[in-house]
Amino acid sequence: MRNWILPQNISDVLPREARQIEAMRRSMLDLFARYGYEFVMPPLVEYVESLFLHDDPALNLKTFKLVDELTGRQMGLRADITPQVARIDAHILNRKGVARLCYAGSVVNTRPDGILSTREPRQIGAELYGCAGIAADVEVIELMFESMALAGLQQVSLDIGHIGLFHALADAAALTGEAREQVFAALQQKDLPTLQQTTAALAAPIRQGLTALPTLYGANDVLTRARTVLPALPAITAALDALEELEGALKARAIPVRFDLAEVKSSDYHTGLVFAAYAPGFANAIARGGRYDSVGEKFGRSRPATGFSLDLRELTRLPFPAARPAILAPCGEAPALLDAIRALRGQGETVIVDLGVDCEEANCDRRLALRDGQWQVIPLV
Amino acid sequence: MRNWILPQNISDVLPREARQIEAMRRSMLDLFARYGYEFVMPPLVEYVESLFLHDDPALNLKTFKLVDELTGRQMGLRADITPQVARIDAHILNRKGVARLCYAGSVVNTRPDGILSTREPRQIGAELYGCAGIAADVEVIELMFESMALAGLQQVSLDIGHIGLFHALADAAALTGEAREQVFAALQQKDLPTLQQTTAALAAPIRQGLTALPTLYGANDVLTRARTVLPALPAITAALDALEELEGALKARAIPVRFDLAEVKSSDYHTGLVFAAYAPGFANAIARGGRYDSVGEKFGRSRPATGFSLDLRELTRLPFPAARPAILAPCGEAPALLDAIRALRGQGETVIVDLGVDCEEANCDRRLALRDGQWQVIPLV
Repeated sequence: MRNWILPQNISDVLPREARQIEAMRRSMLDLFARYGYEFVMPPLVEYVESLFLHDDPALNLKTFKLVDELTGRQMGLRADITPQVARIDAHILNRKGVARLCYAGSVVNTRPDGILSTREPRQIGAELYGCAGIAADVEVIELMFESMALAGLQQVSLDIGHIGLFHALADAAALTGEAREQVFAALQQKDLPTLQQTTAALAAPIRQGLTALPTLYGANDVLTRARTVLPALPAITAALDALEELEGALKARAIPVRFDLAEVKSSDYHTGLVFAAYAPGFANAIARGGRYDSVGEKFGRSRPATGFSLDLRELTRLPFPAARPAILAPCGEAPALLDAIRALRGQGETVIVDLGVDCEEANCDRRLALRDGQWQVIPLV
Repeated sequence: MRNWILPQNISDVLPREARQIEAMRRSMLDLFARYGYEFVMPPLVEYVESLFLHDDPALNLKTFKLVDELTGRQMGLRADITPQVARIDAHILNRKGVARLCYAGSVVNTRPDGILSTREPRQIGAELYGCAGIAADVEVIELMFESMALAGLQQVSLDIGHIGLFHALADAAALTGEAREQVFAALQQKDLPTLQQTTAALAAPIRQGLTALPTLYGANDVLTRARTVLPALPAITAALDALEELEGALKARAIPVRFDLAEVKSSDYHTGLVFAAYAPGFANAIARGGRYDSVGEKFGRSRPATGFSLDLRELTRLPFPAARPAILAPCGEAPALLDAIRALRGQGETVIVDLGVDCEEANCDRRLALRDGQWQVIPLV
């Protein structure tokens, strides 16, 4: 009976880390607000079928199920917030034009992504609905990039891919069902032997296109090479044109870009452009996002959409300044003492009242003392 | 299949309300910090036995259960945060002296408290561990009172009770089991006929004391009357002394007090002083708190404790200023335009980029326009 033991991959966020998460959360939400993103708070639990945008077996598996006592129906504890925000856009706000929404909150996963991953990421993100143009993706990527800077990340690099390339090739080869999934999985794992094997029977231009995707990687000439290596199918040309437009717009914003045209490691709901931010010292992507057009269909209204999200807990590995030391004050009811304490707190100081119990653990470097009939702040001896 | 329908008593928090909750959350957490309260974030889910301080059937019933796939053990989705913070104090931080902790987060209830109540309150609160003296309660009540003021509440009144009075009387009458619970329930509901009936067989001083408790209510003379009406048992004298000390300390802080010595409507874990804040226009208490000494026993370490909490969603009925209108900016890559947008956002302005889709719904009153070769902010026509 050790009641203080937490489940595996579940932990308390203690003061140092909590202060950092709160500071990053505030600065990112304020950043989103300056771009016109409105804050929403979807619920932690809702009927399970509302928590996925499409059949999404991976997300379903990650979602804790619970029974609603009021109706007997199955509810889920959210494992992602993006589908909830899409529901708010599609059905609750119901705007004709663009809707910009942002959110911050915990999600809970039935299983951790990795042996050291938390099962309760603190997800924060921004979503833009109602605009199919590249300008929307540019804005979201800029926001993602600036969020990284706010958190104190340096040398952030951005990987950009386009799931439309794989789908155009697979469609042209009439790949369906398990065969399509095998090729997709091989691409996702960048498993070249399997990729060659599973595409061996396809027409030469398609086979060459699919096996070339993992080589279309880097900061320079990727798009030029892609135009020569990939078949000039309309969907492929459109995707490459979009990537080129994006490259130009991001260069104008001094945001460095790398392409990774085999990048398909995204959520099941992504449909086109996908992007991920990496930084030295972080093995996995710090932030991820992309297009998930036709989202909201399930909620009665199809809308183009693009957005990104990240886990604030991941960023607590970055350095963060310690809390400013406090002032220790005696306990009492004298009006002059109470006024002095109130005034110091009004100036933003932390004033800790000495309750007569050991207070050596409190982070104080000064104290309030009566000197010459006045309450004054003096160094703590 | 209307996938956008949320479960009963579960709702999205939309932008207006979300802005207000976020603003109150920040100002309260900052207030707590100026008093030396350290922010912690306990997890949303943990093993179910860790979520209660004692056998707490009411809280247990309110707690959603889920199965941990990694161990097969039962977990709970928290319906209260206070027991989690007590666990952190008792076992994780393990301070010798006083620990001041605060938190803010969603809790989820299996059933709503009332027909219109949300099942997902946004709980925020502060807890003080390691000090048994009244000075700790004074600090927590002051913090509760200042939190109300920050939210914009006026004419807040404070009701103070002491569960020790009931327990002293019930102990003196050797009331146990069901008989004790019946008297407790009658007091809780201020059901005088039942109270008289269930105490009829008790010794006169005890019976008179228990039936007098509901009359010991108001701002003046309550403690004086209590000393004449209640038997002078040591525990009763101690409780009344504590209330008197509290009254003096709160008067020195200009915090108006009413006593309600039959006030036992508290969480099952409260053991002594209890307090609640009321305001005009709110049927129920806005904030509640009290003593829950010997807390942490379950987590291997007994500690005195006092604290309070409130639901931020309740406070969104208060007026709150609308968001400041934004500036509409054209979409483009010209360096001067990008610089102008960046500079405005740097000044704290919200700048919404016109993505070429209907933007009449955006809350803009100015726009960025090229005038005489300069990007300037002009009224939106």
